[in-house]
Amino acid sequence: MLQPPPAQPGMREDEVDTPALLIDLDAFEANLDKMAALVAPTGAKLRAHSKTHKSPVIAHLQMARGAVGQCTQKVAEAEALAWGGVPDILVSNEVVGAAKLARFAALSKLARIAICADHPSHVAAIEAAARDAGVRLSVLVEIDAGGHRCGVPAGAVAVELARAIAASPNLRFGGLQAYHGSAQHKRTPEERRAAIAGAIEGARLTVDLLHQQGLECPIVGGGGTGTFALEAGSGVYTELQAGSYVFLDADYARNLDEDGAPVTTFRHSLFVLTTVVSTPVPGRAVVDAGHKAVAVDSGLPLVWQRPDLRIVHESDEHGKMEYGPETTAPVVGEKLRLVPGHCDPTVDRHDWYVGVRNGRVECLWPIVARGGIS
Amino acid sequence: MLQPPPAQPGMREDEVDTPALLIDLDAFEANLDKMAALVAPTGAKLRAHSKTHKSPVIAHLQMARGAVGQCTQKVAEAEALAWGGVPDILVSNEVVGAAKLARFAALSKLARIAICADHPSHVAAIEAAARDAGVRLSVLVEIDAGGHRCGVPAGAVAVELARAIAASPNLRFGGLQAYHGSAQHKRTPEERRAAIAGAIEGARLTVDLLHQQGLECPIVGGGGTGTFALEAGSGVYTELQAGSYVFLDADYARNLDEDGAPVTTFRHSLFVLTTVVSTPVPGRAVVDAGHKAVAVDSGLPLVWQRPDLRIVHESDEHGKMEYGPETTAPVVGEKLRLVPGHCDPTVDRHDWYVGVRNGRVECLWPIVARGGIS
Repeated sequence: MLQPPPAQPGMREDEVDTPALLIDLDAFEANLDKMAALVAPTGAKLRAHSKTHKSPVIAHLQMARGAVGQCTQKVAEAEALAWGGVPDILVSNEVVGAAKLARFAALSKLARIAICADHPSHVAAIEAAARDAGVRLSVLVEIDAGGHRCGVPAGAVAVELARAIAASPNLRFGGLQAYHGSAQHKRTPEERRAAIAGAIEGARLTVDLLHQQGLECPIVGGGGTGTFALEAGSGVYTELQAGSYVFLDADYARNLDEDGAPVTTFRHSLFVLTTVVSTPVPGRAVVDAGHKAVAVDSGLPLVWQRPDLRIVHESDEHGKMEYGPETTAPVVGEKLRLVPGHCDPTVDRHDWYVGVRNGRVECLWPIVARGGIS
Repeated sequence: MLQPPPAQPGMREDEVDTPALLIDLDAFEANLDKMAALVAPTGAKLRAHSKTHKSPVIAHLQMARGAVGQCTQKVAEAEALAWGGVPDILVSNEVVGAAKLARFAALSKLARIAICADHPSHVAAIEAAARDAGVRLSVLVEIDAGGHRCGVPAGAVAVELARAIAASPNLRFGGLQAYHGSAQHKRTPEERRAAIAGAIEGARLTVDLLHQQGLECPIVGGGGTGTFALEAGSGVYTELQAGSYVFLDADYARNLDEDGAPVTTFRHSLFVLTTVVSTPVPGRAVVDAGHKAVAVDSGLPLVWQRPDLRIVHESDEHGKMEYGPETTAPVVGEKLRLVPGHCDPTVDRHDWYVGVRNGRVECLWPIVARGGIS
C-alpha cells in the first residue's frame, strides 16, 4: 500500500509527521548546480544515476542542467522514469529473465534505452526480446573496472562480446560500462586515483582494441560521486554516472581531500526527520526512525548539527541515542534531523520526499521507483 | 507505487520473476500449528507480533489457531490490520505526535485497541486523543525488561505511571509491556534463561506492587520466538508476543538448544527467490537480490540447501556469491532460494508474498503494512 504523505505544502517543518524523508531544497539545488558546473568544462557528460533518487522529478531537474539522461539498475526503475517522461535511460546492469527483457524492450517506444551484458547468454536473450518486440536495442558491454562484481575482463573478452552484439540483427553495440563502485568510498585521494587509474587503463585498452577491429564505441560510462572528476579527466570516459551527489550521505562525507579534510564539494541535502519518543533514563533517548526508515548498511545515521547526540543502535522501528551529562537532555516530542549513512536505500524506505525551504514545506514528490527491485 | 506481483497462482516456482518473496506454505503452516500447540497448555495466550508479517491474512491464520490478537510497533501497521478485520490490536510501543494518536484513537471504532507509555507526557497525549475522539483507550506501561531501549524501570516508577493512567478520565490501565528484545538472540539456553529471569523478576515485582495499590493488571505481555517458553512458564506473563516463528530467519536459526545444537522448533518458511545474473569469473557469481530485496542488518542471507554457495557481499541491487572449485558452477538464469538473515525488514522490502506448495504458486498475498513506518 502507498503510505499517505507525512506533510502538506505550507506546513512548518516542525509540523511534519515522522519519520519523514526531507530534502533541504537549497542544499539540493546547490548540489545540482555544482555538479553541472564541474562537468560542463570536461569532455564528458553526466548521465546521473537514478538509483539514488528513484524519481522522474529529480531526473528532469538534472537533465535541465545538462545531464544527457539517466542510469538505472533495474527494469522497474527504468519503467518509472520512462513513464515519467525521461527520454534517455541506460540500465547500467545485467538483466536476466524473458519477462523483464520484454518489459525493457517495450520501453523503447517511450524513450531511448540501452542495457548491459557481460555474457553471451545475455546477448542472445536481449536479441530475442528485441526481435519479439520488433525493435532494435542498444547493448553495452560491462567490463570489470576493479570492483570485482559483474563485468568481463577488459580487453579481448570484452571485444569478443561487443562483436557478438554488433553481429546480432536486432542489436547495436552501445559502448562500455566501466563503473568502479568500491573506489567511490576509498577515503584518500591517492587510493581513489590508484583505483580509477586501473579502471581508465582497462577502458582505454578495450576502446583501442575495439577501434582496431573497426567497432565504434559510442559510450564509455562510469564514475560516481567519489571519483567522477578522475573519469571526466581521463579522455576515455564519455559519460559520468554519479548519483549520490544530489543528497550526499554520511558515508560519502567521510571521504578526504588532498589536505586530509573531509571533501566539501557537495552538501547534505537529504534528512530523515524523526521524533524523540522515549527518554527512559538520563543519557539515553529513543527516536521513531529505525532501520526501516534509515538504512544502516553503510553505517549508522548521524544527528544533524548535534554531534553531542550519538545514535548507537538502530533496530527495526527504534533508533537508540546516547549523550553525555553536558548535553541538554532531549525531550519527548522533540524533532531531530538524521543524516543517513547511505542515501540510496534510505530513499527506498519511503514513499514521499518532503521538500523544505526556510523552515516550510514547499513540495511533496512521490518516490515512484521505490521498491522497484525487479 | 505498488509493484506488480512477481507471479500468478498456478505458475511453477521456476517461472516466478525475481527477486520475489516466497512462503513455503507447508513449512509456514507447520510453524503456525507448532506454536499453537506449544502455547495451548501454558497459562499464557499468544498475541503474535505482526511486525514480522505485516499482513492481515497471516494475522487471521494465527487467530484461527488461538492467538488472542496482534501486536504492532506503529500506528500505520495497526491501521493495516484493523482495516483488514483484525479485532484486537496492541501497539506495543510508544507513539508520539497528535496526528498519529488521532489516527490510533480512530481505530477504536473498528477494533479493540491498546497502546504503551513510558512517560507522563505519553499519558497526557493519549488522554487528549481519547477525549477528542470521544473514546476510552487502554494504555499499558512499558517496563525495561533488560533490553535498555524504551521502558521505565520495573517497580515504583512503573506503578506511578499506571496510577496516572488509571486516574485519567478517558483512559484505562491495560497492564505491563515487558518485552526483552536482545534476549531473543542470545545463543545459549543459559544466556536466554538468565536474561528472561531478570525480565520475569521485574514484571512480578511490578505486578505485586500494583496489586498492593489496588490496581488490576489485565495483561503482562512480552516474549519472542527465542524465549517465549520461558515467559509462558513464568506464571506472571499472560500474553506472548512472538512473531518471527512464522518464518524463522537465519539469525534465529543460530540459537542453540540444551545440547548445543541449533534449535529446530520452527522451520525456515520464508525465502527470497533470486536469479543468477552474472558469472564473470570462475568462483564468483552475482544474483539479482541485493539488500533492497533481502535485509542485511542481522547478517548476510544463506543459500538454501546450498552451503557450497556463500553470499559474501550484498550491495543495493546485487548479491555477490563465491564458491570453491568442487562446486558445480552456477549458470546465468539459474534460480536460487535465499534464507534471509532477518525476516521482518526483508518482508518490508516487498509488496507481495508468493505462497508456494509442491513447486507451484498457490496464492499471492499483499504485504499491506509494508512501509508503515509512521
